[in-house]
Amino acid sequence: MIAEMKNWRHVFKLDPAKVIEDGALERICESGTDAIIVGGTDNVTLDGVLDLLSRVRRYLVPCVLEVSSMEAITPGFDAYFIPTVLNSKEKKWVMDIHHEAIKRFRHFMNWNEIVIEGYCIMNEQSKAFKKTNSHLPNDEDVVSYAVMAEKFFRLPIFYLEYSGAYGDPELVKKVKEQLNETTLFYGGGIRSYEQAKEMKQYADCIVVGNVIYEDIGAALDTVLAVK
Amino acid sequence: MIAEMKNWRHVFKLDPAKVIEDGALERICESGTDAIIVGGTDNVTLDGVLDLLSRVRRYLVPCVLEVSSMEAITPGFDAYFIPTVLNSKEKKWVMDIHHEAIKRFRHFMNWNEIVIEGYCIMNEQSKAFKKTNSHLPNDEDVVSYAVMAEKFFRLPIFYLEYSGAYGDPELVKKVKEQLNETTLFYGGGIRSYEQAKEMKQYADCIVVGNVIYEDIGAALDTVLAVK
Repeated sequence: MIAEMKNWRHVFKLDPAKVIEDGALERICESGTDAIIVGGTDNVTLDGVLDLLSRVRRYLVPCVLEVSSMEAITPGFDAYFIPTVLNSKEKKWVMDIHHEAIKRFRHFMNWNEIVIEGYCIMNEQSKAFKKTNSHLPNDEDVVSYAVMAEKFFRLPIFYLEYSGAYGDPELVKKVKEQLNETTLFYGGGIRSYEQAKEMKQYADCIVVGNVIYEDIGAALDTVLAVK
Repeated sequence: MIAEMKNWRHVFKLDPAKVIEDGALERICESGTDAIIVGGTDNVTLDGVLDLLSRVRRYLVPCVLEVSSMEAITPGFDAYFIPTVLNSKEKKWVMDIHHEAIKRFRHFMNWNEIVIEGYCIMNEQSKAFKKTNSHLPNDEDVVSYAVMAEKFFRLPIFYLEYSGAYGDPELVKKVKEQLNETTLFYGGGIRSYEQAKEMKQYADCIVVGNVIYEDIGAALDTVLAVK
Protein backbone atom coordinates (compact mmCIF):
# COMPACT_ATOMS: atom_id res chain seq x y z
CA MET A 1 0.00 0.00 0.00
CA ILE A 2 2.91 2.34 0.69
CA ALA A 3 4.13 1.76 -2.87
CA GLU A 4 0.72 2.60 -4.38
CA MET A 5 0.25 5.58 -2.12
CA LYS A 6 3.40 7.17 -3.55
CA ASN A 7 1.55 7.68 -6.83
CA TRP A 8 -1.54 9.29 -5.39
CA ARG A 9 -2.23 12.85 -6.46
CA HIS A 10 -5.68 13.43 -5.03
CA VAL A 11 -7.73 11.92 -2.24
CA PHE A 12 -11.11 12.73 -0.77
CA LYS A 13 -11.50 12.63 3.00
CA LEU A 14 -14.91 11.62 4.28
CA ASP A 15 -15.88 12.36 7.86
CA PRO A 16 -17.80 9.52 9.53
CA ALA A 17 -19.55 12.07 11.71
CA LYS A 18 -21.09 13.84 8.69
CA VAL A 19 -23.98 12.81 6.45
CA ILE A 20 -23.49 12.16 2.76
CA GLU A 21 -26.26 11.02 0.40
CA ASP A 22 -25.79 7.97 -1.83
CA GLY A 23 -25.80 10.04 -5.00
CA ALA A 24 -23.05 12.36 -3.78
CA LEU A 25 -21.05 9.44 -2.45
CA GLU A 26 -21.22 7.73 -5.83
CA ARG A 27 -19.95 10.83 -7.60
CA ILE A 28 -17.07 11.13 -5.12
CA CYS A 29 -16.10 7.47 -5.41
CA GLU A 30 -16.35 7.45 -9.21
CA SER A 31 -14.63 10.84 -9.61
CA GLY A 32 -11.23 9.49 -10.54
CA THR A 33 -9.76 10.37 -7.13
CA ASP A 34 -6.97 8.01 -6.07
CA ALA A 35 -8.48 7.01 -2.75
CA ILE A 36 -11.08 7.72 -0.11
CA ILE A 37 -9.78 8.41 3.38
CA VAL A 38 -12.30 7.91 6.14
CA GLY A 39 -11.34 10.10 9.05
CA GLY A 40 -12.39 12.87 11.38
CA THR A 41 -11.60 14.45 14.72
CA ASP A 42 -14.82 14.49 16.72
CA ASN A 43 -17.62 11.99 17.16
CA VAL A 44 -15.92 9.27 15.16
CA THR A 45 -17.87 6.12 16.06
CA LEU A 46 -17.57 2.53 14.92
CA ASP A 47 -21.08 2.77 13.48
CA GLY A 48 -20.15 5.81 11.44
CA VAL A 49 -16.97 4.16 10.16
CA LEU A 50 -18.74 0.91 9.28
CA ASP A 51 -21.49 2.79 7.47
CA LEU A 52 -18.99 4.59 5.24
CA LEU A 53 -16.89 1.47 4.74
CA SER A 54 -19.82 -0.58 3.50
CA ARG A 55 -21.06 2.17 1.21
CA VAL A 56 -17.64 3.06 -0.28
CA ARG A 57 -16.87 -0.63 -0.78
CA ARG A 58 -19.48 -0.74 -3.58
CA TYR A 59 -16.92 1.10 -5.75
CA LEU A 60 -13.44 0.18 -6.88
CA VAL A 61 -11.66 3.17 -5.33
CA PRO A 62 -9.17 2.26 -2.55
CA CYS A 63 -10.53 2.98 0.90
CA VAL A 64 -8.33 3.92 3.84
CA LEU A 65 -9.15 4.44 7.50
CA GLU A 66 -7.29 7.26 9.19
CA VAL A 67 -7.26 6.12 12.78
CA SER A 68 -8.25 8.73 15.33
CA SER A 69 -10.00 6.57 17.88
CA MET A 70 -9.14 3.08 19.07
CA GLU A 71 -12.83 2.31 19.44
CA ALA A 72 -13.61 2.96 15.78
CA ILE A 73 -11.14 0.56 14.16
CA THR A 74 -12.50 -2.25 12.03
CA PRO A 75 -11.03 -4.69 9.51
CA GLY A 76 -11.97 -4.31 5.86
CA PHE A 77 -10.06 -1.23 4.76
CA ASP A 78 -7.25 -1.37 2.22
CA ALA A 79 -4.95 0.46 4.58
CA TYR A 80 -4.81 2.17 7.96
CA PHE A 81 -3.20 5.58 8.20
CA ILE A 82 -1.86 6.39 11.66
CA PRO A 83 -1.08 10.03 12.47
CA THR A 84 1.84 11.01 14.66
CA VAL A 85 1.50 14.71 15.46
CA LEU A 86 4.99 16.13 15.24
CA ASN A 87 4.06 19.62 16.47
CA SER A 88 2.02 18.49 19.45
CA LYS A 89 3.47 19.59 22.78
CA GLU A 90 2.80 16.16 24.21
CA LYS A 91 4.61 12.89 23.68
CA LYS A 92 1.19 11.28 23.93
CA TRP A 93 0.27 12.41 20.41
CA VAL A 94 3.66 11.57 18.94
CA MET A 95 3.94 7.99 20.17
CA ASP A 96 2.38 7.10 23.52
CA ILE A 97 -1.17 6.32 22.41
CA HIS A 98 0.36 4.40 19.51
CA HIS A 99 2.56 2.47 21.94
CA GLU A 100 -0.50 1.55 24.00
CA ALA A 101 -2.27 0.37 20.85
CA ILE A 102 0.69 -1.76 19.84
CA LYS A 103 0.78 -3.31 23.32
CA ARG A 104 -2.87 -4.28 23.05
CA PHE A 105 -3.11 -5.24 19.39
CA ARG A 106 0.32 -6.11 18.07
CA HIS A 107 -0.57 -9.76 17.53
CA PHE A 108 -3.35 -8.69 15.15
CA MET A 109 -1.59 -5.88 13.35
CA ASN A 110 -0.60 -6.29 9.73
CA TRP A 111 2.13 -3.74 9.18
CA ASN A 112 1.83 -4.05 5.41
CA GLU A 113 -1.51 -2.29 5.71
CA ILE A 114 -0.31 0.40 8.12
CA VAL A 115 1.06 3.74 6.96
CA ILE A 116 2.43 6.26 9.45
CA GLU A 117 1.68 9.92 8.72
CA GLY A 118 3.87 12.62 10.22
CA TYR A 119 1.33 15.39 10.83
CA CYS A 120 2.07 19.05 11.18
CA ILE A 121 -1.14 20.87 12.13
CA MET A 122 -1.11 24.50 11.06
CA ASN A 123 -4.49 25.91 12.05
CA GLU A 124 -4.68 27.07 15.66
CA GLN A 125 -8.46 27.35 15.46
CA SER A 126 -9.02 23.76 14.40
CA LYS A 127 -10.30 20.99 16.62
CA ALA A 128 -7.36 18.78 15.72
CA PHE A 129 -4.89 21.48 16.80
CA LYS A 130 -6.59 22.02 20.13
CA LYS A 131 -7.22 18.35 20.83
CA THR A 132 -3.57 17.46 20.30
CA ASN A 133 -2.31 20.48 22.25
CA SER A 134 -0.14 21.56 19.36
CA HIS A 135 2.12 24.57 19.06
CA LEU A 136 2.02 26.77 15.97
CA PRO A 137 5.28 26.24 14.10
CA ASN A 138 6.99 28.93 12.04
CA ASP A 139 8.30 28.16 8.55
CA GLU A 140 11.70 26.94 9.77
CA ASP A 141 9.98 24.69 12.32
CA VAL A 142 7.81 23.18 9.61
CA VAL A 143 10.68 22.60 7.23
CA SER A 144 12.64 20.94 10.03
CA TYR A 145 9.67 18.72 10.93
CA ALA A 146 9.60 17.64 7.29
CA VAL A 147 13.30 16.81 7.38
CA MET A 148 12.73 14.85 10.58
CA ALA A 149 9.82 12.97 9.06
CA GLU A 150 11.99 11.82 6.18
CA LYS A 151 15.47 11.46 7.63
CA PHE A 152 14.99 10.84 11.34
CA PHE A 153 11.82 8.75 11.52
CA ARG A 154 11.72 7.68 7.86
CA LEU A 155 7.95 8.20 7.69
CA PRO A 156 6.22 7.45 4.39
CA ILE A 157 4.00 10.56 4.61
CA PHE A 158 4.49 14.13 5.80
CA TYR A 159 1.04 15.68 6.13
CA LEU A 160 0.78 19.47 6.22
CA GLU A 161 -2.70 19.97 7.63
CA TYR A 162 -4.35 23.38 7.61
CA SER A 163 -7.56 21.75 8.73
CA GLY A 164 -10.30 23.82 7.11
CA ALA A 165 -8.20 26.86 6.29
CA TYR A 166 -6.35 27.40 3.02
CA GLY A 167 -2.61 27.30 3.60
CA ASP A 168 0.47 29.07 2.35
CA PRO A 169 1.57 27.72 -1.05
CA GLU A 170 5.06 29.16 -0.54
CA LEU A 171 5.52 27.09 2.60
CA VAL A 172 4.22 23.97 0.85
CA LYS A 173 6.80 24.61 -1.83
CA LYS A 174 9.61 24.99 0.72
CA VAL A 175 8.58 21.78 2.43
CA LYS A 176 8.46 19.89 -0.84
CA GLU A 177 12.01 20.99 -1.62
CA GLN A 178 13.20 19.10 1.48
CA LEU A 179 11.55 15.80 0.64
CA ASN A 180 12.84 13.05 -1.59
CA GLU A 181 11.54 9.81 -0.08
CA THR A 182 8.63 10.95 2.03
CA THR A 183 5.38 11.76 0.24
CA LEU A 184 3.95 15.24 0.92
CA PHE A 185 0.23 15.43 1.61
CA TYR A 186 -1.42 18.81 1.76
CA GLY A 187 -4.84 19.23 3.35
CA GLY A 188 -6.92 22.25 4.21
CA GLY A 189 -9.37 24.65 2.63
CA ILE A 190 -9.23 23.47 -0.96
CA ARG A 191 -12.60 24.51 -2.40
CA SER A 192 -11.95 25.11 -6.07
CA TYR A 193 -10.23 23.96 -9.23
CA GLU A 194 -7.71 26.81 -8.91
CA GLN A 195 -6.79 26.07 -5.31
CA ALA A 196 -6.38 22.39 -6.09
CA LYS A 197 -4.12 23.27 -8.99
CA GLU A 198 -2.08 25.68 -6.90
CA MET A 199 -1.40 23.30 -4.02
CA LYS A 200 -0.82 20.33 -6.32
CA GLN A 201 2.09 22.19 -7.90
CA TYR A 202 4.03 21.51 -4.70
CA ALA A 203 2.28 18.76 -2.75
CA ASP A 204 2.51 15.20 -4.04
CA CYS A 205 -1.07 14.62 -3.03
CA ILE A 206 -3.87 16.97 -2.06
CA VAL A 207 -6.61 16.04 0.39
CA VAL A 208 -10.06 17.48 -0.21
CA GLY A 209 -12.62 17.22 2.56
CA ASN A 210 -15.06 19.86 3.78
CA VAL A 211 -16.13 21.12 0.37
CA ILE A 212 -17.63 17.70 -0.35
CA TYR A 213 -20.35 18.57 2.13
CA GLU A 214 -20.83 22.12 0.90
CA ASP A 215 -20.46 22.11 -2.86
CA ILE A 216 -20.15 18.71 -4.48
CA GLY A 217 -19.56 20.22 -7.91
CA ALA A 218 -16.60 22.24 -6.64
CA ALA A 219 -15.31 19.13 -4.88
CA LEU A 220 -15.38 17.16 -8.14
CA ASP A 221 -13.60 20.02 -9.93
CA THR A 222 -10.59 19.50 -7.65
CA VAL A 223 -10.10 16.07 -9.19
CA LEU A 224 -10.08 17.54 -12.68
CA ALA A 225 -7.50 20.08 -11.59
CA VAL A 226 -4.87 17.47 -10.78
CA LYS A 227 -5.58 14.80 -13.40
CA MET B 1 27.39 3.45 7.51
CA ILE B 2 23.96 1.97 8.28
CA ALA B 3 24.80 -0.95 5.99
CA GLU B 4 28.13 -1.65 7.74
CA MET B 5 26.60 -1.22 11.18
CA LYS B 6 24.21 -4.09 10.48
CA ASN B 7 27.16 -6.49 10.61
CA TRP B 8 28.61 -5.28 13.88
CA ARG B 9 28.69 -7.77 16.70
CA HIS B 10 30.74 -5.94 19.31
CA VAL B 11 31.55 -2.32 20.03
CA PHE B 12 33.44 -0.60 22.80
CA LYS B 13 32.03 2.61 24.22
CA LEU B 14 34.56 5.12 25.46
CA ASP B 15 33.48 7.93 27.77
CA PRO B 16 35.11 11.28 26.95
CA ALA B 17 34.81 12.21 30.62
CA LYS B 18 37.02 9.31 31.71
CA VAL B 19 40.77 8.84 31.46
CA ILE B 20 42.29 6.04 29.41
CA GLU B 21 46.04 5.52 28.96
CA ASP B 22 47.54 5.15 25.49
CA GLY B 23 48.47 1.52 26.06
CA ALA B 24 44.95 0.54 27.08
CA LEU B 25 43.46 2.55 24.22
CA GLU B 26 45.67 0.75 21.73
CA ARG B 27 44.58 -2.64 23.04
CA ILE B 28 40.93 -1.61 22.78
CA CYS B 29 41.27 -0.24 19.26
CA GLU B 30 43.29 -3.23 18.04
CA SER B 31 41.09 -5.77 19.83
CA GLY B 32 39.07 -6.81 16.81
CA THR B 33 35.98 -4.93 18.02
CA ASP B 34 33.83 -3.64 15.17
CA ALA B 35 33.79 0.00 16.24
CA ILE B 36 34.53 2.50 18.95
CA ILE B 37 31.61 4.60 20.12
CA VAL B 38 32.54 7.82 21.87
CA GLY B 39 29.74 8.76 24.20
CA GLY B 40 28.74 9.52 27.77
CA THR B 41 26.07 11.18 29.85
CA ASP B 42 27.81 13.69 32.09
CA ASN B 43 30.66 16.14 31.54
CA VAL B 44 30.95 15.43 27.84
CA THR B 45 33.04 18.32 26.53
CA LEU B 46 34.33 19.15 23.09
CA ASP B 47 37.89 18.87 24.44
CA GLY B 48 37.20 15.38 25.74
CA VAL B 49 35.61 14.31 22.46
CA LEU B 50 38.43 15.77 20.35
CA ASP B 51 41.05 14.11 22.53
CA LEU B 52 39.50 10.67 22.03
CA LEU B 53 38.86 11.27 18.34
CA SER B 54 42.47 12.17 17.62
CA ARG B 55 43.80 9.25 19.63
CA VAL B 56 41.39 6.62 18.21
CA ARG B 57 42.03 7.88 14.69
CA ARG B 58 45.56 6.42 14.86
CA TYR B 59 43.93 3.01 14.38
CA LEU B 60 41.82 1.58 11.60
CA VAL B 61 38.76 0.80 13.72
CA PRO B 62 35.62 2.80 12.78
CA CYS B 63 34.93 5.60 15.22
CA VAL B 64 31.44 6.87 15.98
CA LEU B 65 30.26 9.80 18.06
CA GLU B 66 27.11 9.18 20.06
CA VAL B 67 25.71 12.67 20.39
CA SER B 68 24.58 13.68 23.86
CA SER B 69 25.45 17.34 23.81
CA MET B 70 25.17 19.85 21.00
CA GLU B 71 28.30 21.60 22.27
CA ALA B 72 30.50 18.52 21.86
CA ILE B 73 29.87 17.74 18.20
CA THR B 74 32.79 17.84 15.81
CA PRO B 75 33.45 16.65 12.26
CA GLY B 76 35.84 13.77 11.72
CA PHE B 77 33.89 10.75 12.94
CA ASP B 78 32.79 7.98 10.60
CA ALA B 79 29.24 8.29 11.84
CA TYR B 80 27.05 10.12 14.33
CA PHE B 81 24.62 8.10 16.43
CA ILE B 82 21.65 10.10 17.66
CA PRO B 83 19.58 8.66 20.51
CA THR B 84 15.82 9.10 20.70
CA VAL B 85 14.69 7.94 24.13
CA LEU B 86 11.47 6.03 23.54
CA ASN B 87 10.69 5.49 27.24
CA SER B 88 11.31 9.05 28.32
CA LYS B 89 8.21 10.78 29.70
CA GLU B 90 9.07 13.90 27.74
CA LYS B 91 8.73 14.63 24.06
CA LYS B 92 11.92 16.65 24.48
CA TRP B 93 14.04 13.46 24.58
CA VAL B 94 12.14 11.76 21.78
CA MET B 95 12.33 14.51 19.18
CA ASP B 96 12.31 18.12 20.38
CA ILE B 97 16.01 18.62 21.05
CA HIS B 98 16.65 16.85 17.75
CA HIS B 99 14.21 19.18 16.00
CA GLU B 100 16.05 22.19 17.42
CA ALA B 101 19.36 20.75 16.21
CA ILE B 102 17.95 20.19 12.72
CA LYS B 103 16.67 23.78 12.65
CA ARG B 104 20.14 25.09 13.48
CA PHE B 105 22.33 22.69 11.54
CA ARG B 106 20.34 21.10 8.76
CA HIS B 107 22.37 22.80 6.04
CA PHE B 108 25.51 21.11 7.37
CA MET B 109 24.07 17.71 8.20
CA ASN B 110 25.09 14.71 6.12
CA TRP B 111 22.35 12.18 6.72
CA ASN B 112 24.44 9.38 5.28
CA GLU B 113 26.61 9.64 8.40
CA ILE B 114 23.72 9.88 10.83
CA VAL B 115 22.17 6.84 12.48
CA ILE B 116 19.15 7.15 14.75
CA GLU B 117 19.08 4.89 17.80
CA GLY B 118 15.77 4.09 19.49
CA TYR B 119 16.83 3.88 23.13
CA CYS B 120 15.01 2.07 25.87
CA ILE B 121 16.73 2.82 29.19
CA MET B 122 16.19 0.06 31.74
CA ASN B 123 18.14 1.11 34.82
CA GLU B 124 16.27 3.48 37.12
CA GLN B 125 19.44 4.26 39.06
CA SER B 126 21.42 5.39 36.04
CA LYS B 127 22.23 8.97 35.19
CA ALA B 128 20.82 8.56 31.70
CA PHE B 129 17.49 7.34 33.08
CA LYS B 130 17.17 10.26 35.49
CA LYS B 131 18.42 12.87 33.07
CA THR B 132 15.88 11.87 30.43
CA ASN B 133 13.04 11.53 32.97
CA SER B 134 12.29 8.02 31.80
CA HIS B 135 9.69 5.58 33.07
CA LEU B 136 10.62 1.98 33.82
CA PRO B 137 8.92 -0.17 31.19
CA ASN B 138 7.70 -3.70 31.84
CA ASP B 139 8.48 -6.51 29.38
CA GLU B 140 5.42 -5.85 27.23
CA ASP B 141 6.27 -2.15 27.11
CA VAL B 142 9.79 -2.94 25.96
CA VAL B 143 8.68 -5.39 23.30
CA SER B 144 6.19 -2.82 22.01
CA TYR B 145 8.86 -0.11 21.93
CA ALA B 146 10.96 -2.48 19.82
CA VAL B 147 8.05 -3.04 17.43
CA MET B 148 7.58 0.73 17.24
CA ALA B 149 11.25 1.29 16.55
CA GLU B 150 11.13 -1.06 13.59
CA LYS B 151 7.63 -0.68 12.16
CA PHE B 152 6.47 2.78 13.18
CA PHE B 153 9.62 4.89 13.06
CA ARG B 154 11.74 2.52 10.95
CA LEU B 155 14.81 3.18 13.10
CA PRO B 156 18.03 1.39 12.14
CA ILE B 157 18.90 0.59 15.80
CA PHE B 158 16.91 -0.42 18.87
CA TYR B 159 19.21 0.01 21.86
CA LEU B 160 18.32 -1.80 25.08
CA GLU B 161 20.42 0.07 27.62
CA TYR B 162 20.84 -1.23 31.15
CA SER B 163 23.45 1.44 31.74
CA GLY B 164 25.93 -0.17 34.14
CA ALA B 165 23.69 -3.00 35.34
CA TYR B 166 23.54 -6.43 33.74
CA GLY B 167 20.18 -6.98 32.11
CA ASP B 168 17.68 -9.79 31.65
CA PRO B 169 18.76 -12.14 28.83
CA GLU B 170 15.19 -13.47 28.52
CA LEU B 171 13.92 -10.00 27.74
CA VAL B 172 16.70 -9.42 25.23
CA LYS B 173 15.64 -12.67 23.59
CA LYS B 174 11.98 -11.60 23.46
CA VAL B 175 12.93 -8.26 21.94
CA LYS B 176 15.12 -9.90 19.32
CA GLU B 177 12.21 -12.11 18.27
CA GLN B 178 10.28 -8.96 17.27
CA LEU B 179 12.98 -7.47 15.09
CA ASN B 180 13.74 -8.20 11.46
CA GLU B 181 15.02 -4.96 9.98
CA THR B 182 16.14 -3.02 13.01
CA THR B 183 19.48 -3.96 14.58
CA LEU B 184 19.36 -4.80 18.29
CA PHE B 185 22.10 -3.28 20.45
CA TYR B 186 22.45 -4.44 24.02
CA GLY B 187 24.43 -2.39 26.52
CA GLY B 188 24.93 -2.65 30.26
CA GLY B 189 27.02 -4.48 32.81
CA ILE B 190 28.94 -6.81 30.52
CA ARG B 191 32.14 -7.55 32.46
CA SER B 192 33.16 -11.02 31.35
CA TYR B 193 33.54 -13.47 28.50
CA GLU B 194 30.48 -15.39 29.74
CA GLN B 195 28.21 -12.35 29.96
CA ALA B 196 29.28 -11.21 26.51
CA LYS B 197 28.52 -14.66 25.15
CA GLU B 198 25.14 -14.78 26.87
CA MET B 199 23.90 -11.42 25.62
CA LYS B 200 25.33 -11.91 22.15
CA GLN B 201 23.11 -14.98 21.72
CA TYR B 202 20.19 -12.58 21.36
CA ALA B 203 21.50 -9.11 20.66
CA ASP B 204 22.92 -8.38 17.22
CA CYS B 205 25.60 -6.24 18.80
CA ILE B 206 26.82 -5.88 22.36
CA VAL B 207 28.21 -2.65 23.75
CA VAL B 208 30.97 -2.89 26.33
CA GLY B 209 31.86 0.22 28.30
CA ASN B 210 32.58 0.53 32.02
CA VAL B 211 34.73 -2.58 32.35
CA ILE B 212 37.29 -0.97 30.04
CA TYR B 213 38.14 1.36 32.91
CA GLU B 214 38.11 -1.33 35.58
CA ASP B 215 39.60 -4.46 34.07
CA ILE B 216 41.07 -4.11 30.61
CA GLY B 217 41.74 -7.84 30.35
CA ALA B 218 38.13 -8.69 31.02
CA ALA B 219 37.09 -6.03 28.50
CA LEU B 220 39.24 -7.62 25.81
CA ASP B 221 37.80 -11.05 26.66
CA THR B 222 34.35 -9.79 25.62
CA VAL B 223 35.63 -9.41 22.06
CA LEU B 224 36.85 -13.01 22.01
CA ALA B 225 33.45 -14.14 23.24
CA VAL B 226 31.61 -12.90 20.17
CA LYS B 227 34.21 -13.42 17.42
